[in-house]
Order: sequence, then C-alpha cells, then structure tokens
Amino acid sequence: MPKETNKQPIEAYLREILPLVDREIEKIVPRILSPEWLEKTLGKADFVYDPESLSNALSKPIWDLLDRGGKRWRPGLLILSCEALGGKKELALKFTPLVEIIHNGTLVSDDIEDSSEVRRGKPCIHKIFGIDIAVNLGSAMCFLATPLLYNNYYGLEEKKLLKLNNLVSQEVLKCHAGQAMDIYWHRGQKYDVTEKEYLQMCAYKTGTLARLAAKIGAVLGDATQEQLEALGKFAETIGIAFQIQDDILNLTGEKFQQGKGIGEDIHEGKRTLMVIHSLHQESQPDKKRLLEILNSHPEDQATIVEAILILKKNNSIEYAKEKARTLVKNAWQQLDTRLEESQAKKTLKSFADYLIEREI
Amino acid sequence: MPKETNKQPIEAYLREILPLVDREIEKIVPRILSPEWLEKTLGKADFVYDPESLSNALSKPIWDLLDRGGKRWRPGLLILSCEALGGKKELALKFTPLVEIIHNGTLVSDDIEDSSEVRRGKPCIHKIFGIDIAVNLGSAMCFLATPLLYNNYYGLEEKKLLKLNNLVSQEVLKCHAGQAMDIYWHRGQKYDVTEKEYLQMCAYKTGTLARLAAKIGAVLGDATQEQLEALGKFAETIGIAFQIQDDILNLTGEKFQQGKGIGEDIHEGKRTLMVIHSLHQESQPDKKRLLEILNSHPEDQATIVEAILILKKNNSIEYAKEKARTLVKNAWQQLDTRLEESQAKKTLKSFADYLIEREI
Repeated sequence: MPKETNKQPIEAYLREILPLVDREIEKIVPRILSPEWLEKTLGKADFVYDPESLSNALSKPIWDLLDRGGKRWRPGLLILSCEALGGKKELALKFTPLVEIIHNGTLVSDDIEDSSEVRRGKPCIHKIFGIDIAVNLGSAMCFLATPLLYNNYYGLEEKKLLKLNNLVSQEVLKCHAGQAMDIYWHRGQKYDVTEKEYLQMCAYKTGTLARLAAKIGAVLGDATQEQLEALGKFAETIGIAFQIQDDILNLTGEKFQQGKGIGEDIHEGKRTLMVIHSLHQESQPDKKRLLEILNSHPEDQATIVEAILILKKNNSIEYAKEKARTLVKNAWQQLDTRLEESQAKKTLKSFADYLIEREI
Repeated sequence: MPKETNKQPIEAYLREILPLVDREIEKIVPRILSPEWLEKTLGKADFVYDPESLSNALSKPIWDLLDRGGKRWRPGLLILSCEALGGKKELALKFTPLVEIIHNGTLVSDDIEDSSEVRRGKPCIHKIFGIDIAVNLGSAMCFLATPLLYNNYYGLEEKKLLKLNNLVSQEVLKCHAGQAMDIYWHRGQKYDVTEKEYLQMCAYKTGTLARLAAKIGAVLGDATQEQLEALGKFAETIGIAFQIQDDILNLTGEKFQQGKGIGEDIHEGKRTLMVIHSLHQESQPDKKRLLEILNSHPEDQATIVEAILILKKNNSIEYAKEKARTLVKNAWQQLDTRLEESQAKKTLKSFADYLIEREI
C-alpha cells in the first residue's frame, strides 16, 4: 500500500498539532467569555458587560462546531510554511487561530446559505442555535482572532503586523467573492460556467484560507516576496484540489460523508468541475438532461443517481481527479526550487498528496 | 421654532456631503464590477474572473440598498472629527466608505436576523436577492472597503495604516458582540436586562460604527490619544442616543417609519431602554403583563398597543429621552475642552442635537 506510507505521517502530524492548535484557539476565544477576557479583548466596558449572553451567542456555538472535529490542515499549512523557511513552530502556532476561526466561520455561513441540515455529523449551527445567532456568528468569526493583531500579544514588529492585516483583509474579501460566485451559479442564474471560471471560484472560495495560512506562516518565517507568493500559490492549489476532492467525495463517498447525503451537490445544482466537464461534452441529450436535473434541485435518490451516472459515463470524475493532481504538481514545482531541503518541506510536499488522495 | 435653527444647517450639511460620500463609495465598490476593478482590488486572476456573477451577487444588492437613502451621518461624523482637529476634509472624505459600507452591511445582516420584511421603504435585501446572497453580502461588506487600507490608495504612512486597521478590527468585533447580546435578549433568554447592560449593548451595536467613524477621522486629523478617545466617546454616545431615539420612534413615529410597522420592536420582544425602565417599576401586574406580551411576540395591533400604553403609563418614553440627552451632554463636556473652536466643532455639537431630536 504505497499511499499509506505518505498518509500515515501526515495524519500523525495533524493529530499531533490538533490539541496544540485548539489550545491556542481557546486562548483567543475561551469556551466561557469571562469579564477579564472581555476587557482584554474589547477594552474596558463603558457601562457593564454581560458575559453570559456573549458566551451563549458567541463562544458556545463556536466550540460546539470546533469540538466536532475537522482536520486543522490549514493551521498545519501555516506552521509548516513558517518552519520550511527556518521560522519558529512555537510562534507560528500562536497565529493559527487566525485561519481556523475564520474557516469555521465560513462553514457556519455556508450552511445557512446552502440550507444545509448537517455538519460534521450533527445538526448545523443555525439548526441548533437559530439563524439569527448563526448569521451574526459567521460574520463575527472573521474578526474574533484579530485581537492577535490589534493587541499584538506576541510583540511582532509593526511592518509584520501591517502585512498580516493586509493579508487577512484581502484574502477574506476574496473568500466572500468566491462564495458569491458559487451561490450565484448554483441558483442556475449563469448558464455556462467555464472550467477556468470554476477554478477561479475554487481559488477564492476554498483556496483563499489555505493561501492565507501559508502566507501568514511565510511572513512569520521572514519569507522573500518570491517565497511568499510561491507558498501562497502552492497552498491555494492544495485548496482547489481539496475542493475538487470534496466534490468527488460528495458523489462517490459513502460511509465517510459525515452525515451529508450522497449527491447533495446535485440537489443543490452546484456547477462542480465534473458537471462543467460533462456539460462541455458533445452528447446533446446527456447535456440537456443533466442541466434539467441540476436546475430542478431534485430530492429523490433516483434522479440524483441518474445525474451521477451521466458524469461517470463522460469520465468526468476521472478527469477532475487528474486535474487536481496536475495543478498541485505544477504548483509544487514552482515552490520546490525556492525552499531549502528540510523536514518541514518534506511534510509540506506529502501534505498535498494526502489531501488529494483522502477518502474522508 | 428654536429647534429648526439647529436642524436646518445639519440637514443641509448632510445633503451636501451625501453625493460626495456616495461618489467615494462608488470608487471603492462600483455599481458594475469590471475586470479592471477586480484586478485592482483582488489582484491578478489566477484563472479568469466572472465579473457578471460578482456584480449580481455583490455590487448590485449593495447599491440597491444605498440608493434607497440613509442619512450618511457616520461619514459626516468622520469628516467633522478630522476637520475639528485641523485635518483635511478631502482626505477624510476618501475614508468614509470604510464606515458607510460596513454600516449598510450590518443592516443587511440585521434584517435577516430579525426576519424583517422592509428596509427604507422597500423589501429587505434578503427578500429581493435571497438569504444566501444576503448572508454572504452582510459579512463581505465588513471587508469591501478594506482595499483603502491594504492597497493604501491615498499614501498614508504605515503607522496610520496600522492604527486604522486596528480600529476597524476591534470596532467591528464590538459591533458583532453588541448584536450577539441584542439577539440573545430579544429571544427572551435573559430574564432581567439591566439599564447598564442595555446601554453597553447600544454602545457596541450602534455606538460602534459612530465611534469608528470619529476615530478614523481623528487618526487622519493627527489627534492626540486624549482627543481620539474623547471624539470616540462622544460619537459612541451619539450612537447610543440615536438608538434610543430609534426605539422611541418605533413606538411613536407614524408617517416616518419608512415602512416599518409601529411597535415592531414589541413584536420582536426587544429589551429597549423603555421596556427595561417599565420592568423596573414597582407595579407587579404591569410588569408581568409586559413580559408576557414581549415573550409572546404578538402580531396583533391591540396587544402591541397595550404594551405601548404600559410604557407610557410608566413615563418610560420620557425617561429614555431624558437619558439620551444627559448622556450626550456629558460626553460633549468631555470633548469640548479638548478641541479648539472652529466651524467644524460647532457643526459637531449641533449634529448631536439633530440626531437626538429627529423625528425620522
């Protein structure tokens, strides 16, 4: 089993950092928001704080989601990017909440936007806490780790702080742009999405937080501009490949979809790379039928399976897998020459393989 | 009519700056997002942009809301704070989109959270464009003006850029904290909200963007730390007073509620200052009945009027008005000694009177 040799060390690596990352997140957003935390984070109260309500509407739902798992691979990417440049793991670790909290915030918002029911095997946050708390939370989570920057807890120099602020602002904006494209498309309001447009959407929607993670690591590790861009591009590409693999698993994965139904993307009418590939094949009847199914947002399994069979017939799933591999291979080549050999570099490389080949 | 003499110059001032502010917003978020704008704002496309979808899911709903009006008083506060310190109006104007876009974003999100139907006389953004686009938009709008900072279009020095970043992050976080408290309360999940807790919620929910506006103006006008804090506090207090007046108008305003029904806050079960005041009076039957009404989220006008009559009987509306006046008076005294006399300072003062006494 040659794949296993690549997978195991990464899985072990992620298992190792997970509790460390969560400890840092808990420092930034504790499970219960105390008056002391509020004062440190938001400044002295003008009148008086209400820590109970804030805990119930902010930290409680955040930890409900975080405690369900997740791979923490973006934090892993942040730490490895810093280490591969000779930077300190301990420092990098401190800044991992910046990406992991934002990432989980996008999940809260996505689930409302997609009217999803289940996330990581449990009802979505808006199903448990209400749409009002969830809408506010998803947006708040884009900012909940920023005290790391505006309070400068770890004494970074001003130049680095400004760079990190700039990165967060631009990448989070891109993330929303990607989401905007995705939403607009799967409503069927754009007739013909091209492969390049799809990849751009992924680069923004899923690539963004991976790119942000790598670039934060790069800034902390004193990267040259060239190294920063190459690390960012590599991470972005991993993000794209991760999304493609996610879309594939949505159609093929069975046990491991953690509560998501098979073919939910078909039901939502998503223009995935596989759908786009099939829609660009020559068979007119298939094309027409596939569009019909996607735009009707089917609930019944038979219609969903019919769509999946069209995708399979056109080899669209294989095509998407191959595309993901090629993109990552090319991005790695660009990065390879710009990093000295190190254990962190090796782990970074096998990281990509792991995320693409994963089955959960 | 002594009030008129105060009101007219402010209304004229806001009418004068409105088109100027909107022109700056349009530079930052044009009505139609061109490939050139996308490249300038988000960087070179990795693959290819889809400006049509992005326009439809981002700029179109933003301008749908902005074109409905609004007073642009936060931008006014930003400009006047800068000018009162001897800073340049032209420079201050450039940064007004930072507060006005975020403010409108909070309206988009609030309306989803409150299940509102109407905003500024038209259906809410989520009613026209869908919840998915609106959820993404409300959050995106917290970031849509940040290119002003990360692209540094107006050549600010690094120190100022970092200060502005810090202000935006912390204030927007406070804004979400205020919203979290408000949501949690008007679900009736906190039994006894105190006046101080209410004022803190307002300081965060409504005071925040006013404070952010004044502090941005202060940074641009080279304020001392003392001046910055006093301007921030004054603006925050205007925000609180504005919210109190908003709550009063919700119960008493008739023609001018721009499509919002009278007593919508009662229907939503909101713990306004008036409600809190009445709940702290000694009459037990009134108290019990008021709580009953608030927690039942009544639709019928008779029950809503019953609640309003309890508030009137307890003089809670007068109490709230007086509270707003006192708060602003005190904050002005703190600021007064810290600013030299100028036309901008005069306008700033009458600004507060205008927002508190307004009837729309």
